[in-house]
Amino acid sequence: MKEKQRLNVVKVGGKILENEADLGELLDAFCAIPGQNILVHGGGRSATELAEKLGIEAPMHEGRRLTNADMLEVAIMVYGGLVNKRVVAHLQARDKQAVGLTGADLNIILAHKRISDQVDYGFAGDIDSVQGESLQLLLAGGIVPVLAPLTHNGQGQLLNTNADTIAATVAQAMSSSWEVHLVFCFEKAGVLLNPDDDSSLLTSLDQVAFQELVASGDISGGMIPKLTNAFTAIQRGVTNVWIGKFDQLPMLHTDAYLGTRIS
Amino acid sequence: MKEKQRLNVVKVGGKILENEADLGELLDAFCAIPGQNILVHGGGRSATELAEKLGIEAPMHEGRRLTNADMLEVAIMVYGGLVNKRVVAHLQARDKQAVGLTGADLNIILAHKRISDQVDYGFAGDIDSVQGESLQLLLAGGIVPVLAPLTHNGQGQLLNTNADTIAATVAQAMSSSWEVHLVFCFEKAGVLLNPDDDSSLLTSLDQVAFQELVASGDISGGMIPKLTNAFTAIQRGVTNVWIGKFDQLPMLHTDAYLGTRIS
Repeated sequence: MKEKQRLNVVKVGGKILENEADLGELLDAFCAIPGQNILVHGGGRSATELAEKLGIEAPMHEGRRLTNADMLEVAIMVYGGLVNKRVVAHLQARDKQAVGLTGADLNIILAHKRISDQVDYGFAGDIDSVQGESLQLLLAGGIVPVLAPLTHNGQGQLLNTNADTIAATVAQAMSSSWEVHLVFCFEKAGVLLNPDDDSSLLTSLDQVAFQELVASGDISGGMIPKLTNAFTAIQRGVTNVWIGKFDQLPMLHTDAYLGTRIS
Repeated sequence: MKEKQRLNVVKVGGKILENEADLGELLDAFCAIPGQNILVHGGGRSATELAEKLGIEAPMHEGRRLTNADMLEVAIMVYGGLVNKRVVAHLQARDKQAVGLTGADLNIILAHKRISDQVDYGFAGDIDSVQGESLQLLLAGGIVPVLAPLTHNGQGQLLNTNADTIAATVAQAMSSSWEVHLVFCFEKAGVLLNPDDDSSLLTSLDQVAFQELVASGDISGGMIPKLTNAFTAIQRGVTNVWIGKFDQLPMLHTDAYLGTRIS
């Protein structure tokens, strides 16, 4: 059997995306990763900021703003436009051939509106399928796909989908042909037992340890869905998940990588 | 010598882009054009509207708003995000494989900031080069490139470039390998001697007649740069330029086409 080639699906989010200097540092690090890579980005707080400036009031649910029609427009403008195109322009400046895509472009990610009896999730999209072939062709052409957290339903409706979920689902879809490493990178050093102390970094984590740490309350908040996504991805064929600071990207696949390795 | 294949570069602008029902009609017509097509869009008044909502005041010059840093962000959000991704999602709904691109994506259009002693044009981009090969590859794969009126300088800076100019320059670049037809379509029936009377349509126009009509004042306003673009494109290898209403798109290349043919 032919050995699979390595592919990194790198998800970046948080504050790093919000100003051009940090973005530059991030993309320098990204461009230093050897081999084939897909970049998935969130939007930081830019969407919330734009919504506030426009006086858009979307209903909240469990601490998160729901995607009503106005918030969807904001998401398309900020994620699909501002953040995505800036990242692409900065990659080109680093001689990295890149193309910015939503799930609608090349029909890459089909989704449906989230259905619930309790809550109207509006234009939140749950993923149905990922078209790996188009991504494959781009990678074969030496092109970095840059994915915005937007999907579509195939009937003309764009939908808002969490960037972590997009990264995990794309990683799973690509793992039939590649040895896929899924990388979540942000400002923190990785999974920390004490969020304010980088020395409390867990350098590795398996599912049993994860469940114990959730039960004991040592892992909480936004890290739980991120790690749940990570374990699901591994069960579905992704080789490793790495969680760490963006400056560690050039060390991926080396012993020098400092972050959390999920396996 | 092998006969060149036909390629239509279709530029759409104006009010048609502003609401989903008109956009649907436009894209139905676009999808009915046989053969290979590239779609270039403007943004209608959506960018101006968003700028007003955000209280952005960009200086004016000759009746047009200049692209200061704030207006550039608006242009990226509206042209590169909202309009571009909506068009792509609606093409996918019509089973048309499509990808939305700015000039930064795949490095398709390089430009530089417009230089002037008199006016600070801000982030207005004048085109230096079009990478035809990437567009070629997309067309060969049955993919419709959907181009937003944005370019980049190769150093990380996105720039705002007029959609008519993008369409004309892309048409010229593609004409070395294709028989290119450049189509400007909007709400009017074509070049009209009286803007309020569709029966004053000129069904054809050459450069001599154009210059006479400009001298006599029968053609004025925004139609002059559009037609100047058209004649330049023809001098540089484009086969024909068509100006007409969007519902005529399915009749392109037939005798039934009702609009102005520039040759």
